[in-house]
Amino acid sequence: MAAAEIRNVSQAYPMKGGDGPDSYAKNSTYQREAMESVKELVTKGIAEKLDIDLLLPSNVFHIVDLGCSVGPNTFSSVENILEAVLLKYQSQGPMDPQIPEFQVFFNDHTPNDFNLLFKSLPPNRQYYAVGVPGSFYGRLFPRASIHLFHSSFALQWLSEVPKEVVDKNSPAWNKGRIHYLSSTDEVVRAYKAQYAVDMECFLHARAQELVDGGLMVLIIPGYPHGTPLSDTVAYLTLQLIEACLIDMVTKRMVSEEKLDSFNIPMFSPSPQELEAVVERNGCLSIETLKPLPRQTDNTVLNTKLFASHGRAAFEGIIKQHFGEEILDELFDLYRKKLEEELSIVKPRKSTSLLVVLKRKAN
Amino acid sequence: MAAAEIRNVSQAYPMKGGDGPDSYAKNSTYQREAMESVKELVTKGIAEKLDIDLLLPSNVFHIVDLGCSVGPNTFSSVENILEAVLLKYQSQGPMDPQIPEFQVFFNDHTPNDFNLLFKSLPPNRQYYAVGVPGSFYGRLFPRASIHLFHSSFALQWLSEVPKEVVDKNSPAWNKGRIHYLSSTDEVVRAYKAQYAVDMECFLHARAQELVDGGLMVLIIPGYPHGTPLSDTVAYLTLQLIEACLIDMVTKRMVSEEKLDSFNIPMFSPSPQELEAVVERNGCLSIETLKPLPRQTDNTVLNTKLFASHGRAAFEGIIKQHFGEEILDELFDLYRKKLEEELSIVKPRKSTSLLVVLKRKAN
Repeated sequence: MAAAEIRNVSQAYPMKGGDGPDSYAKNSTYQREAMESVKELVTKGIAEKLDIDLLLPSNVFHIVDLGCSVGPNTFSSVENILEAVLLKYQSQGPMDPQIPEFQVFFNDHTPNDFNLLFKSLPPNRQYYAVGVPGSFYGRLFPRASIHLFHSSFALQWLSEVPKEVVDKNSPAWNKGRIHYLSSTDEVVRAYKAQYAVDMECFLHARAQELVDGGLMVLIIPGYPHGTPLSDTVAYLTLQLIEACLIDMVTKRMVSEEKLDSFNIPMFSPSPQELEAVVERNGCLSIETLKPLPRQTDNTVLNTKLFASHGRAAFEGIIKQHFGEEILDELFDLYRKKLEEELSIVKPRKSTSLLVVLKRKAN
Repeated sequence: MAAAEIRNVSQAYPMKGGDGPDSYAKNSTYQREAMESVKELVTKGIAEKLDIDLLLPSNVFHIVDLGCSVGPNTFSSVENILEAVLLKYQSQGPMDPQIPEFQVFFNDHTPNDFNLLFKSLPPNRQYYAVGVPGSFYGRLFPRASIHLFHSSFALQWLSEVPKEVVDKNSPAWNKGRIHYLSSTDEVVRAYKAQYAVDMECFLHARAQELVDGGLMVLIIPGYPHGTPLSDTVAYLTLQLIEACLIDMVTKRMVSEEKLDSFNIPMFSPSPQELEAVVERNGCLSIETLKPLPRQTDNTVLNTKLFASHGRAAFEGIIKQHFGEEILDELFDLYRKKLEEELSIVKPRKSTSLLVVLKRKAN
């Protein structure tokens, strides 16, 4: 039995649920725009890399969206994938219109709002929809049962904060900071080590779950080799949240100890770091690994929208640590600081990596 | 594509969600007791009827719980099934401990509280858990993808109220009544016709979704041929709710029109009625069809518990039609009437049918 492997190995920081004005569902336009800009690339990747005989013997194609969250992006990215797979099959000649059938598994942490997800399913969808609760750092599916994994803007979340960065006695103690960006080498090393361990779990689980020849299509925040970390949108957001929290410590609205024990478990790898973990796993070949076209993130120019995005993405984890009562003050401050620093903000660009991996034959 | 078939064909009357004192999760002991009393029969049925070579070629066994609701019963009945399947496989000789793997699909209407279901999943479960929203009167799964369907106390819900019984101009208009039990022949016929149509959809969908040789294990409220309808627990419950609503019409707390337009879409077949629909479908063989051992329903003697059960089961549909404001009054009245009629209540027995169907080879 696989019982020992079926566990939730990571902490869950769900995106803000529901569909209110501050919800993730209403504040993920940045992710959507990025997804649309890569639609063509994903279609091309599937056309080139998908083996047509994967479907045999069952004629059912299983797609998984890992870290699906809840919102319109959830469905549009799955539909892009599905269309791309269909196109590839159709390119082989006339098809039985009933073949293939698609089953789509929407995965996210257990606290994700699956009730809203199910209520929002497109009524005319061309697939059988299923929800799968649990961390993608552990096993989620039976062996050799999935044809294509997709994940968009979810793999930046580590399974947990590296232990050393909240340990006062460690040289990697991240006092007064909430992230590795702009921190000491020791802290950066602790984050990198956590990333390596997490990705080892992730790739090990997926390699077991994929059928031979099955694909993983991942879109992850990353940065091209040589880009200064301070040139990323993530840096801007986290730096500003950190500055706000420090202000609130000064005003005694937040205790110093609370701030010292808070770190955001996010990490963006370089292509080289990603290559290294895939090669260590050994079961998957890298078919595509490239930075997506760098686009100026227009939402940065719209400070109100950018502030909403920041709140939707980080409210959950901040609330869990500091309590609900600081949220309004914190994100008001955040918006104000963002406006003040608009001149610094303007030239910033967002970067992401498109990764296509293929399961080698067993 | 199967898009046209993937739809929610029936109305949803979810059991009361959450885990508060009136919730279905806390008020389904009757169902649990019935399930425990049939555990042995289900195990025997699977041991006798399950084909051992079903698992090939994938070594993954797919179980579906149709109309799973949310509560401890949800998981215990699935575990019974899983243990029975394992026992059957082990009886064939020593097994690879990693085979088979189980994937369990929990299905219910979209408004079911899947968030609670996922939160309640047993941490040491021996299966991969998945949630599937949608009506079981339509297609829910790809072709030939399921090895065993299970449904316990869910198939009594029709997809909708038969149209004629709420049509003033029909001879089957069910004025002043909320059910076919104790009603006119025309009303009984309308309910029977709706049941036949619904079961045709249900069996058609399941026959497509089952692998050849796959099983359906159904536990449904029913009555042995010749049992007077008035001798059933369902009759008692519905009769009392009806009497309470009539009282409330007299007290002008509910309008006559509201009552006339309300009917509960539940139906319990006789074994003969069930046989007839299975034979009309033609794709499934009846392996087992028998009344479960008739047990005196002890909860009937505990009026408070019986009243809670009634509320948990029917609150959703009553609220949808009459509004939330009548609920407390109605169920207070219901409990009082139940106490008054205790002498009538005592001899009542509950009855259910155990049905095992097998997919014939295509």
